[in-house]
Amino acid sequence: MAASAISQTIGVGHVLPLEVVDKCIGNKVWIMMQGTSEFYGTLRGFDDYLNIVLDEVREYQDSGNGGKRVLVNTLDSMLLNGSHVCMIIPGDAPPPKGENEK
Amino acid sequence: MAASAISQTIGVGHVLPLEVVDKCIGNKVWIMMQGTSEFYGTLRGFDDYLNIVLDEVREYQDSGNGGKRVLVNTLDSMLLNGSHVCMIIPGDAPPPKGENEK
Amino acid sequence: MAASAISQTIGVGHVLPLEVVDKCIGNKVWIMMQGTSEFYGTLRGFDDYLNIVLDEVREYQDSGNGGKRVLVNTLDSMLLNGSHVCMIIPGDAPPPKGENEK
Amino acid sequence: MAASAISQTIGVGHVLPLEVVDKCIGNKVWIMMQGTSEFYGTLRGFDDYLNIVLDEVREYQDSGNGGKRVLVNTLDSMLLNGSHVCMIIPGDAPPPKGENEK
Amino acid sequence: MAASAISQTIGVGHVLPLEVVDKCIGNKVWIMMQGTSEFYGTLRGFDDYLNIVLDEVREYQDSGNGGKRVLVNTLDSMLLNGSHVCMIIPGDAPPPKGENEK
Amino acid sequence: MAASAISQTIGVGHVLPLEVVDKCIGNKVWIMMQGTSEFYGTLRGFDDYLNIVLDEVREYQDSGNGGKRVLVNTLDSMLLNGSHVCMIIPGDAPPPKGENEK
Repeated sequence: MAASAISQTIGVGHVLPLEVVDKCIGNKVWIMMQGTSEFYGTLRGFDDYLNIVLDEVREYQDSGNGGKRVLVNTLDSMLLNGSHVCMIIPGDAPPPKGENEK
Repeated sequence: MAASAISQTIGVGHVLPLEVVDKCIGNKVWIMMQGTSEFYGTLRGFDDYLNIVLDEVREYQDSGNGGKRVLVNTLDSMLLNGSHVCMIIPGDAPPPKGENEK
Repeated sequence: MAASAISQTIGVGHVLPLEVVDKCIGNKVWIMMQGTSEFYGTLRGFDDYLNIVLDEVREYQDSGNGGKRVLVNTLDSMLLNGSHVCMIIPGDAPPPKGENEK
Repeated sequence: MAASAISQTIGVGHVLPLEVVDKCIGNKVWIMMQGTSEFYGTLRGFDDYLNIVLDEVREYQDSGNGGKRVLVNTLDSMLLNGSHVCMIIPGDAPPPKGENEK
Repeated sequence: MAASAISQTIGVGHVLPLEVVDKCIGNKVWIMMQGTSEFYGTLRGFDDYLNIVLDEVREYQDSGNGGKRVLVNTLDSMLLNGSHVCMIIPGDAPPPKGENEK
Repeated sequence: MAASAISQTIGVGHVLPLEVVDKCIGNKVWIMMQGTSEFYGTLRGFDDYLNIVLDEVREYQDSGNGGKRVLVNTLDSMLLNGSHVCMIIPGDAPPPKGENEK
């Protein structure tokens, strides 16, 4: 059986990643890019390649050492290339970055 | 259901990333590449892989520390490989790069 | 014969990677990303591109020198882009990182 | 509508990236690769993945600090993998690399 | 003729990469990943994207300077994402890493 | 018109990259990988993704500063993942790496 047909036949009942993204439409999301850029904004759209349209965007840089975020830009609207998107986190609040066990 | 069919069936009503790019044809865009290169020019064309044709191009390098852009080249026309394009920002003015909260 | 048809015709009897992932649904997995990020959580879903939906997520950073993991975040749910996923390890316990022969 | 059908239906009238490459066949092009390698040669061929066949090739390394190019090799013919091609610039002369506004 | 049809029509008689991998099923292989990770284990499966299922895995880090490998982990089973696999070497013994001409 | 159909319709008469590779079957080739690894060996096979089967392989590391190659390994046979292949140079002799104009 071809690899490309596996999740269709055996994956019944599990959550599809693009469905998770679809449920975020119109809501706030955090998007972590390859490298140190992070974006927080309203998800307006996406496609099969995880290309993302964000509105009311706040761009942060991860300062690295202490894990502190620095706001570097605000933008009305932008497109992120899906192949450089690493993670998408649904939600209104920026995720904590504590360095100790919780 | 195959992943490649998700956005077709459940994504009704949200903005498609390539539509956003299409609306920029003939207008100025900022394109941030993987690494430190940034391009500002007139969008002449694109395809499904986000390959981009830019005219009247100004190439900048992000100097890194203070976030200051340095113009390193001007070009009549060029093609950018979509897999190295990170972000596309529609608009005539270069986006601000302030390091303090706005 | 096209490369894309090889594993269908000659690969009879061997384990398909996506079947291995499918068996992890509902269970704990370790996911090592490109770079130093590692995630431990419950696998809720995936697709053909190895995009991953994780719940009850613990994000670790590999500190590098001594191979010690540092917990940097906990998240209810997130999506990982398959193209940045390097390895998936099924199982409940974090894999050891001893630097001496075992 | 599927993302892969967008540029076919709404992109009427804009320049397609591969058409730009096609017009360069038989002529000199500059090709900037991921990293610091740059190639100048005669374009003999390409395909949908931006894989490139170059003849009479001069390979340069971007020395980085002052933006000066250094010739490191000459080759009769070579193939460049499209996924490592960042930019293609049509033309006979190497593009200037001034660091001040023009 | 489309690029995707070339190897089917003109490549008659040459060895297909996935056939080479297929012959390794059940045997030991060395897998070099992007970066400094190397894996030695029993190949259980693969797919068209070079995603790999390994059993009885030994993970090594290339220490870099003297080319010496350091064992950092042992795992029962794991999945490697094909897009981060650089090379696959069939065989039971780790390849030598001498720095002088042989 | 879809991007994926361009080279089929307008690219008549130019050299296709995979044809160039196909002509190297049974002959020596140089393969430069992403990073500093270079391979010299007999090309036994390839596929549409530029995955490569090499026999009688000599692996070199580019030492970087003076451009001198260092032989680090010899292998009977190996598979290179096409997505990490940067360039393929047909020919029996290693390409020169002079740093002065020729």
